[in-house]
Amino acid sequence: MRYQLYYWPGIQGRGEFVRLALEDAGADYADVARGKGGVAAMQKFIDGKRLAQPPFAPPFLKAGKLIVAQTANILFYLGPRLKLAPRDEAGRLWVHQLQLTISDFVLEIHDTHHPIAGRLYFEDQRAAARWRSADFLHYRLPKFLGYFERVLKANGGTYCVGRRGSYVDLSLFQVVEGLRYAFPKSMKRFEKKIPGLIALHDRVAKRPGVKAYLNSPRRLPFNEWGIFRYYKELDG
Amino acid sequence: MRYQLYYWPGIQGRGEFVRLALEDAGADYADVARGKGGVAAMQKFIDGKRLAQPPFAPPFLKAGKLIVAQTANILFYLGPRLKLAPRDEAGRLWVHQLQLTISDFVLEIHDTHHPIAGRLYFEDQRAAARWRSADFLHYRLPKFLGYFERVLKANGGTYCVGRRGSYVDLSLFQVVEGLRYAFPKSMKRFEKKIPGLIALHDRVAKRPGVKAYLNSPRRLPFNEWGIFRYYKELDG
Repeated sequence: MRYQLYYWPGIQGRGEFVRLALEDAGADYADVARGKGGVAAMQKFIDGKRLAQPPFAPPFLKAGKLIVAQTANILFYLGPRLKLAPRDEAGRLWVHQLQLTISDFVLEIHDTHHPIAGRLYFEDQRAAARWRSADFLHYRLPKFLGYFERVLKANGGTYCVGRRGSYVDLSLFQVVEGLRYAFPKSMKRFEKKIPGLIALHDRVAKRPGVKAYLNSPRRLPFNEWGIFRYYKELDG
Repeated sequence: MRYQLYYWPGIQGRGEFVRLALEDAGADYADVARGKGGVAAMQKFIDGKRLAQPPFAPPFLKAGKLIVAQTANILFYLGPRLKLAPRDEAGRLWVHQLQLTISDFVLEIHDTHHPIAGRLYFEDQRAAARWRSADFLHYRLPKFLGYFERVLKANGGTYCVGRRGSYVDLSLFQVVEGLRYAFPKSMKRFEKKIPGLIALHDRVAKRPGVKAYLNSPRRLPFNEWGIFRYYKELDG
């Protein structure tokens, strides 16, 4: 199966959680919107004129005739197929539950720099962004990362799900990587409280598929258009 | 199967999307935290000391030994069991994708009155709330409701999924109901643009299970502690 991933070119964004799974598994896929005419093709799916079941927004994945949207839903679909999730119902629900909690966390991370509206510039909402970021760093970041640290520990400390890891473990790598980019000073202080997650991050970075991907031009650098953005004034 | 739902007592909140599905289907369930000692019992699951796979937050559902958290995940699990979702994989992914888009919408609705932090009072963040609400009513509300209006129309206009409706249709009833409570003036103006969703809302309200539930003391009234809150100054 050759998968077709549709996501905005130029940013890692939510598409990155899907890319990491595809790359780790060595799956055959095209990153359509990064090719010629790809954004226009993507837009046609969202317009919904040619589809009875249009996605609300990217990312979405085309697998044969099937189109799956919503990051966590795409990973739910791919999980067992890429051997990145258990096959039984209880296991699939658990890994999906964790991924949905990551989705909530990622949205809160995004809203630190855009607490009023995603369509407005950061500069127009910087006072609110500073306030929200301070609250986020003090209360929300420790709550979310502390939760995943506990889950990891309860599963033996190597991976959060299973013995060989899951798409949730890949996503947690991305979350740590992104938080280090966005909040370097705060993360430096906080990392000693989550030694398990930091070791997990390093473990994932060394997986052959992930390592090759990170060293390839397919991995875009972080920048100030994505979810994780660096604004010095927001970093505690 | 007797289900046990755990959610904060005193508000409809995210638990309401699960309650509507259980009530519509006439399922046997206990709303545990509304009974004596229920909140303490709920808290124990979240503390995670007795569970290797603890929920991050309510709502969660106990079904035999299985514990499922995250609203959309609970509905994904219950859907086919309550005959409120298709049984085939493509159908389940589609209805789940719509539910995840409703989750995103619901979070944006919540953040209109709490754009800085959920733990702070509304009164402490009212300037930011007014700004975010204005943007929400102008851009986000039409975008989300317009999307669901299109999906509904593409499925024939009676329900968004299937011929007899799905948990997504029940959730859209709740969204319309909540938006009418939170933004009565704005919704009055906007409703003429979404005649299909308004008819869907009325159709769902008449389903025997939903109708009986809405007329029972189990249905809590909206109030200023939940997701949908009425603050006159935020209503356009």
